[in-house]
Amino acid sequence: MTQLVNSADSHVVEPLDLWQQRLPKHLRDRAPRIEEVGGKWTFVVEGLPPRNMGGAGDAKSKNKQATGFRPGGSDPDLRAQDLDEDGVWGEVLYPTIALFGFMIPDAELRWATARAYNDWLAETFTAASKRFAGAAMIPVQEIDAAVEEIERVARLGMRSVMLPMQAPDAQPYNTDRYDPVWAAAQAHGMPVSFHVGTGANPVHERGPGGAVINYVEVGLGAQRTLAYLAASGVLERFPELHVVMVECGAGWLSWLMERMDEAFEEHAGWVKPKLAEPPSFYVRRQGHVTFGNDGAGVVNRELTGIEPLLWASDYPHPEGTWPHTQETLTRIFAGVDERERRLITIDNTARLYGLEPPAAG
Amino acid sequence: MTQLVNSADSHVVEPLDLWQQRLPKHLRDRAPRIEEVGGKWTFVVEGLPPRNMGGAGDAKSKNKQATGFRPGGSDPDLRAQDLDEDGVWGEVLYPTIALFGFMIPDAELRWATARAYNDWLAETFTAASKRFAGAAMIPVQEIDAAVEEIERVARLGMRSVMLPMQAPDAQPYNTDRYDPVWAAAQAHGMPVSFHVGTGANPVHERGPGGAVINYVEVGLGAQRTLAYLAASGVLERFPELHVVMVECGAGWLSWLMERMDEAFEEHAGWVKPKLAEPPSFYVRRQGHVTFGNDGAGVVNRELTGIEPLLWASDYPHPEGTWPHTQETLTRIFAGVDERERRLITIDNTARLYGLEPPAAG
Repeated sequence: MTQLVNSADSHVVEPLDLWQQRLPKHLRDRAPRIEEVGGKWTFVVEGLPPRNMGGAGDAKSKNKQATGFRPGGSDPDLRAQDLDEDGVWGEVLYPTIALFGFMIPDAELRWATARAYNDWLAETFTAASKRFAGAAMIPVQEIDAAVEEIERVARLGMRSVMLPMQAPDAQPYNTDRYDPVWAAAQAHGMPVSFHVGTGANPVHERGPGGAVINYVEVGLGAQRTLAYLAASGVLERFPELHVVMVECGAGWLSWLMERMDEAFEEHAGWVKPKLAEPPSFYVRRQGHVTFGNDGAGVVNRELTGIEPLLWASDYPHPEGTWPHTQETLTRIFAGVDERERRLITIDNTARLYGLEPPAAG
Repeated sequence: MTQLVNSADSHVVEPLDLWQQRLPKHLRDRAPRIEEVGGKWTFVVEGLPPRNMGGAGDAKSKNKQATGFRPGGSDPDLRAQDLDEDGVWGEVLYPTIALFGFMIPDAELRWATARAYNDWLAETFTAASKRFAGAAMIPVQEIDAAVEEIERVARLGMRSVMLPMQAPDAQPYNTDRYDPVWAAAQAHGMPVSFHVGTGANPVHERGPGGAVINYVEVGLGAQRTLAYLAASGVLERFPELHVVMVECGAGWLSWLMERMDEAFEEHAGWVKPKLAEPPSFYVRRQGHVTFGNDGAGVVNRELTGIEPLLWASDYPHPEGTWPHTQETLTRIFAGVDERERRLITIDNTARLYGLEPPAAG
């Protein structure tokens, strides 16, 4: 039997009516939803432009469920079958529609959306199997409410929290306003993750090359956010906090570490705060990135260290490796020793999220 | 004798009074300059906030010239001595003060500043020795004037042109308004380079970690600009055009190639234009990045190919390798075969800029 691996970034696909069912009654007609618009499945989230769904294809397709994704997106049993066939055991679960919920302008609707999602995720997936580690959605426009929701989802058994990649309201993550959030996550041993494309409109270039440029741009957001957390001293001040940049690839991490350290040393006269160690030290100790298809992260492992690297399938999204995970792993780990491959595909994620796959037998 | 290498990114340091001497008389009191402000050397450029100079240190320092940099910054003979001692032969020359000239709001002053810089660079360095390949400063707010200046500097013997990394006036480089510029550079066989920190204020984060974050951010700008040029079809439409991202490090390039290709394939339904090849093909063929101290670019060479990689000293700036170039090369090329090392440190730059060092004897 092949040794099963963990995916540090997979997605649920929320039922079409999740928020229409679960929001307080007076908010239901403003619920985030997926709607068929002109034959295409479309995200409809209050305050945001309607968004054609990535990879959903034709709404009439017979091979996919109504949303255009595999039914395992919302059914834990069907999901487990897909994973078993693909050689994946544990998964850290991120949303699909709710990725856009961080930007709902109205605070009441935003918080109700987050809580309803977290409840559904806990009931449907994290309660169904220890294979599923949920990342709860935590908006951070209101810090007290964020801390309260972290406490609540910890009680629900969630093992991680997800903040928006782009911090809200021109209050970047290097300011101390987020300290209560870091403290709460650290206290519960919950990794804090940042998924690409959250907290800002991921479509900002509509001209030639836009689809490619935007996919690059959200990856730049991951590099930026990790730099903010490392250079500002957040990771130094919260030494047990782990931060995870999600769906950004890993090939840039060695560059970021060297770039930060070069500035830290060569521009020392301007550097504040004076960290006890260069920024890369904190990234190596507490930072992580998820990657799926790309070989560059693996090639750079001697520079980055192994611990930051988390392999991920992105199931059931179209960029993901399902149902070809084994071929992908063979390709990107060619020439890599078994111990390192095991850390990147199993143990690093197991340690962060409590996802221990059964031993190969 | 050690084989001398080429530096694809070095800097001149403009004389304090360059523009006060060379601008048309009615513009001289608005000249860009370096001034002592409160004991610190400061860039003063019309329309921009005054900027404390990188690495200049104390204006009273006895070991540096008035600007705080080595005198080789403005004297070609003293420069040649410094290079000889450090084992560097040819250099592609970028400015120091004029890096900020792209953002001068007034068109007349901006163009006069660019032309005066280009004249001074051609007379002082590129006429003095074939070791020095000048990158002429070409603002692109006005396309006709840009093309005219490219033609003019080609007649002056300049071997390259420099455009701002951040395109002006919300007119990004994926629009066809720049086609005459690409065509002119291609016609003269001039690589078009983009130096980090140009075209936008490089200081955009002043909070905790700002010095490190800003140094990262300008590097993200290089990734973005290369994505715009590749994904939009500029490199496909101008197949003899070479573009060079300068002082951004090289470790991110493998990631960018994989990231662009993933979007190109997985989001094919949204991709316009449909390039004949995936974006990485054009980067491998026509894109280049300069790096100095960082090992990540070399580690990734099997993914990026060798041709995009250009080693650079950044002399005489404080981030540079002078006077420790040989130790740096030994470190970053450990385990790399001699043929590849020679391409990255000599031949790739020689081919692009006509910089052929004498053979080791």
